[in-house]
Amino acid sequence: MPTLADIGEDNLIRKLMRGVKLDGDVIAGAGDDCAVVRGSKDEHTLLKTDALVQDVHFTLETPPKLIGRKAIARVVSDFAAMGGTPRHAMITLVAPPSMEVEFLSEVYRGMRTIAKEYGINIVGGETSRGLVLMLSISMSGTVPSKRWLSRSEGKAGDVILVTGRLGGSIHGKHLKFQPRLEEGRWLSENAHPHAMMDISDGLAKDLPRLALASGTHYQVNVASLPCNPGCSFDQAWGDGEDYELLLAVNPRSVKSLLQKWREAFPKLPLTIIGKLVPPGEGRPPDFESTGWDHFALSADG
Amino acid sequence: MPTLADIGEDNLIRKLMRGVKLDGDVIAGAGDDCAVVRGSKDEHTLLKTDALVQDVHFTLETPPKLIGRKAIARVVSDFAAMGGTPRHAMITLVAPPSMEVEFLSEVYRGMRTIAKEYGINIVGGETSRGLVLMLSISMSGTVPSKRWLSRSEGKAGDVILVTGRLGGSIHGKHLKFQPRLEEGRWLSENAHPHAMMDISDGLAKDLPRLALASGTHYQVNVASLPCNPGCSFDQAWGDGEDYELLLAVNPRSVKSLLQKWREAFPKLPLTIIGKLVPPGEGRPPDFESTGWDHFALSADG
Repeated sequence: MPTLADIGEDNLIRKLMRGVKLDGDVIAGAGDDCAVVRGSKDEHTLLKTDALVQDVHFTLETPPKLIGRKAIARVVSDFAAMGGTPRHAMITLVAPPSMEVEFLSEVYRGMRTIAKEYGINIVGGETSRGLVLMLSISMSGTVPSKRWLSRSEGKAGDVILVTGRLGGSIHGKHLKFQPRLEEGRWLSENAHPHAMMDISDGLAKDLPRLALASGTHYQVNVASLPCNPGCSFDQAWGDGEDYELLLAVNPRSVKSLLQKWREAFPKLPLTIIGKLVPPGEGRPPDFESTGWDHFALSADG
Repeated sequence: MPTLADIGEDNLIRKLMRGVKLDGDVIAGAGDDCAVVRGSKDEHTLLKTDALVQDVHFTLETPPKLIGRKAIARVVSDFAAMGGTPRHAMITLVAPPSMEVEFLSEVYRGMRTIAKEYGINIVGGETSRGLVLMLSISMSGTVPSKRWLSRSEGKAGDVILVTGRLGGSIHGKHLKFQPRLEEGRWLSENAHPHAMMDISDGLAKDLPRLALASGTHYQVNVASLPCNPGCSFDQAWGDGEDYELLLAVNPRSVKSLLQKWREAFPKLPLTIIGKLVPPGEGRPPDFESTGWDHFALSADG
């Protein structure tokens, strides 16, 4: 009998979600950064859940305030990718009975601080005992109904851009990154991207996902990748947890977008890194590392 | 340094939620069966999260379909307690890589089946590896804005009632119970209870919670407890996982309520078990078991 290790996460999700029936109130179900459901006339509701597991996403050596911060920030990043606004959070906490209360208090302090910063209410949650610490955050929020962004509407010919710089997040950024919430809303209003998502698993994994969802392939100009100081192009491509935004924009809008962006966010780069191309075109970026071996260049395979 | 085991769940939650600031869109935060946030003009939004952990809430001997069923049904029961309607669910799945895919497929089959039964969309979720199986379900839904029910508006003099029969859930009902969703909405429309909640941890724990939240004490008529076949009054009082509704109703409405109930739900008992009384009155039900030793009779301590 095959195990989870045999089939991998993406296949598991596809298998489990097969047979799920949705009614007309669901505008976008599983597969995007957030689910989109019908809300009021002008606004849709966004829903998202995300878990942090001890020894997978953090260790007990991680400063507890930063564990809490990261748990919330990851979800805010998903709302940013939709052009939306997070509003209410619920926290499921699983912890061993032997855990010190003070450690958890610090975790919550980290959550409260960043929640306040982004205008998010912590409206409830649940605790249960378990073998290791686990935090599952679920959040609801809003997005203008005419302007929510999926990852699946990219078109061949679109220019691919990323915010910020990539690579080396493991050295600290993965605990302290600033979710691009304001930038996400600004892009949704000013750039009208065809597709947008956040880079959580690394460009090497996430760009193929965007292309696959959009039914295209892609081409990347390696030398254009915006690297964090001390990082190689290889790391910018293969490392995960950048939490920057990845977007596909009509080539005709790019010039004016870059100009307006520089005025709005003078300190944050927005960089063209390649383009979406028709299926069958595109070729793999030329790296020596094995990091990006794990993805398929071709969007449909 | 005190651990979680030292201070217990209720104290932990109180401690962690201290210092949480909420804005005007939150009508009820942590502490009720669901959180209530502002939605449209006529409807509020309900939010709830709930986790099932292997070897705490189920074992790997439990039929996997029933694990999935229970995970969803518990949350539906919380919506029932608010007089609301669940609409969209997200599923966080933590599982060891060695777990068989077929086992999880059966868990999801159980979730899909009951979700369909109650008109709930499974709109997304997340998977992560972990040491044991854990399911965290978060759900959003609606409740008429003028008719949502908290557990905190009970008044001294109110009559306390429960739906169904209590006790012995461990012999099977805890996996197969029918959440009282239709009954909850009916009660909200027809009985206008001052307070309502579902009985998940047992009457012995949950009735004091309702009384505490309402600022009252309570008195129970032991001989009136509706017992499941083969169960003692002691079990009806102390066992958990009944997932029946517990409500406090103005004494003047009770007679007509019971009459209308019998017409609407001829097969399901609705039983008067006691009353809410002013703080300082009330006395503990007279049991020999130790089950109910763990709660404080007095609503404020």
